[in-house]
Amino acid sequence: YVQQLEIKLEMLEKGGYDHFMLKEIYEQPRSIGDCMRGRIYPLEGKVKLGGIKEYTEKFKNAHRIIIVACGTSWHAGLVGEYLIEEYARIPVEVEYASEFRYRNPIITENDIVIAISQSGETADTMAAIEMAKAKGATIFGICNVVGSSIPRLSDAGIYTHAGPEIGVASTKAFTAQVTALTLMAFYMAEKKGTIAQTKLIALLSELERIPSLVERALQSDGLIREISEKFKDSRNALFLGRGSGFPVALEGALKLKEISYIHAEGYPAAEMKHGPIALIDEQMPVIVIATKNSSYEKVISNIQEVKARKGVVIAIVTEGDTEVVRMADYSIEIPSADEAFLPLLATIPLQLLSYHIAVLRGCNVDQPRNLAKSVTVE
Amino acid sequence: YVQQLEIKLEMLEKGGYDHFMLKEIYEQPRSIGDCMRGRIYPLEGKVKLGGIKEYTEKFKNAHRIIIVACGTSWHAGLVGEYLIEEYARIPVEVEYASEFRYRNPIITENDIVIAISQSGETADTMAAIEMAKAKGATIFGICNVVGSSIPRLSDAGIYTHAGPEIGVASTKAFTAQVTALTLMAFYMAEKKGTIAQTKLIALLSELERIPSLVERALQSDGLIREISEKFKDSRNALFLGRGSGFPVALEGALKLKEISYIHAEGYPAAEMKHGPIALIDEQMPVIVIATKNSSYEKVISNIQEVKARKGVVIAIVTEGDTEVVRMADYSIEIPSADEAFLPLLATIPLQLLSYHIAVLRGCNVDQPRNLAKSVTVE
Repeated sequence: YVQQLEIKLEMLEKGGYDHFMLKEIYEQPRSIGDCMRGRIYPLEGKVKLGGIKEYTEKFKNAHRIIIVACGTSWHAGLVGEYLIEEYARIPVEVEYASEFRYRNPIITENDIVIAISQSGETADTMAAIEMAKAKGATIFGICNVVGSSIPRLSDAGIYTHAGPEIGVASTKAFTAQVTALTLMAFYMAEKKGTIAQTKLIALLSELERIPSLVERALQSDGLIREISEKFKDSRNALFLGRGSGFPVALEGALKLKEISYIHAEGYPAAEMKHGPIALIDEQMPVIVIATKNSSYEKVISNIQEVKARKGVVIAIVTEGDTEVVRMADYSIEIPSADEAFLPLLATIPLQLLSYHIAVLRGCNVDQPRNLAKSVTVE
Repeated sequence: YVQQLEIKLEMLEKGGYDHFMLKEIYEQPRSIGDCMRGRIYPLEGKVKLGGIKEYTEKFKNAHRIIIVACGTSWHAGLVGEYLIEEYARIPVEVEYASEFRYRNPIITENDIVIAISQSGETADTMAAIEMAKAKGATIFGICNVVGSSIPRLSDAGIYTHAGPEIGVASTKAFTAQVTALTLMAFYMAEKKGTIAQTKLIALLSELERIPSLVERALQSDGLIREISEKFKDSRNALFLGRGSGFPVALEGALKLKEISYIHAEGYPAAEMKHGPIALIDEQMPVIVIATKNSSYEKVISNIQEVKARKGVVIAIVTEGDTEVVRMADYSIEIPSADEAFLPLLATIPLQLLSYHIAVLRGCNVDQPRNLAKSVTVE
């Protein structure tokens, strides 16, 4: 006889996951790998980006790079700012596309504008690049949807190759954008000679291992689900980070806002003392990126400040950490890696945290209220 | 006989106001006037800034201006970015001092660093300018406390002359910083020839009248107190603005956070669709800067989006407005003025709103929990 398969098409597409968002979170080892495939050559110490190759001289001589984007893509842009300034030594300014387009921004032919958009159809971002183009700037697109409008409007660009993203809250598209910006920063640094060959080889070798490290970061899922139980009824949350951990904090807060409707806000950790610390009491979970990198000691003192005000600390720590683990109420480990790759790894537990909290609150994770997948209106 | 005066020294110093913060809010017509006194010459179309006069060539040839600051001063810096880019056409980047100092920022001898700090003693800002100085940048200080450390560390600068600020939440120091940055933007624009003489004359004539317009904005105090009654039990709030109304929104949100412990967050109005709109329901007051300027129509559509999600809108509108008034739940008028002066006027009702809400909640307005007046530690 024939056994009836009681399964919906949607379930099949979710590949056994409860939600597209969770599926897409779990796809990241592959999507990050897809973004860098054929583009990095660790043994040679080379990044090859066919899409922007003919603009190499433009990059080498760029006075400024202006990144325009909205929402999650704007956070990827902030990560890009840290990476490009650090490695390629070109001043970068990151602008909200909606603000940039209505000002009379200072743009010259020596400037490069990078537009970031998952869909490639974000209305404000499109308007921003049209304006920059009119002023003679060279336009690069970092988009996910092949053949979309922004790539067509751009002089050149690179696709993120994350595959279709169905969940409204962006996850794998974000990490692919960050990967693309990392590649771009290394590419420019190599061409400009602002990075030592040995350093670049080391970084590229490590970058090649990032998909497996992301895989490892995903193994905290069970622990994160347990922690989420404690915070499902929170009304507010703060996310703190320093350096490139700051945009990760912003992105973590945005995810929680989007799908759980908890008012979460990201801050550079040191800014807390200039106001937000007044919010902290025993009701306020504070999520801190506290991995072992150049700002480790500084972040520890920020954690102490939060604890002194009875805040509850959830720390994202480097595997094997004991010092932060002792101070924090909850700790989630991510694998150790060069600081350049912190955003790719530290984002993972924050995605899972917002996912589980939203599910426990009974929210519609894949279709949060009031939000559209791509904002094609102003 | 002798009648005993039952009055404390502190009360005298408060000049009859219940709190230093309220006194300082009301001092703003004078403090803004003090900041511009002897510096503007509307009839001649000139701004005279003795403190930076000998650096005029530096400004004219500056490749970039980097503003470093923390907290409220950082918001003043964002206003400065709009003004300097708009009028003097020099690219400006605004950095959190705490982030800037721990990166390896790109600074050259052609760059100017402006450090903003009320106390002149902010630890992170001091460290940032020491680093920029080592890289050869010219350093300007915008400080309130005469003879403090930052002016001494700077090559030149201007004092804001706001007088001593006792309330921990900065009010008159902020508007004085904005006034100083406005003067600086006009000064540079005149020297660079990026502004028409007739335009500058018109702007300076209007700037001279700003103290009396601030006086008029303060007359909404009673209405704002009534509105505050409705929102004293709110747990969250969003503040939205566009253009230079965006930093005003950030500052309005910070005030509410600092003294009422309500989790308020500022956003560029158009970014709402990229996430924060998910937070909006009938519990969420949304304060919108909706004055009649270049972004008026765009802000109206943002208000419609909020209303469609049942959010409660408190709008800051231009005197005589009817369109926004019809849509908003509550409207607070400010006098009409050139867009350049929007931050100085729109800030006033937001200060009063946070003040009254905090008082109604029984908070210690002048000494909010966890906060220090000047952050002299990292």
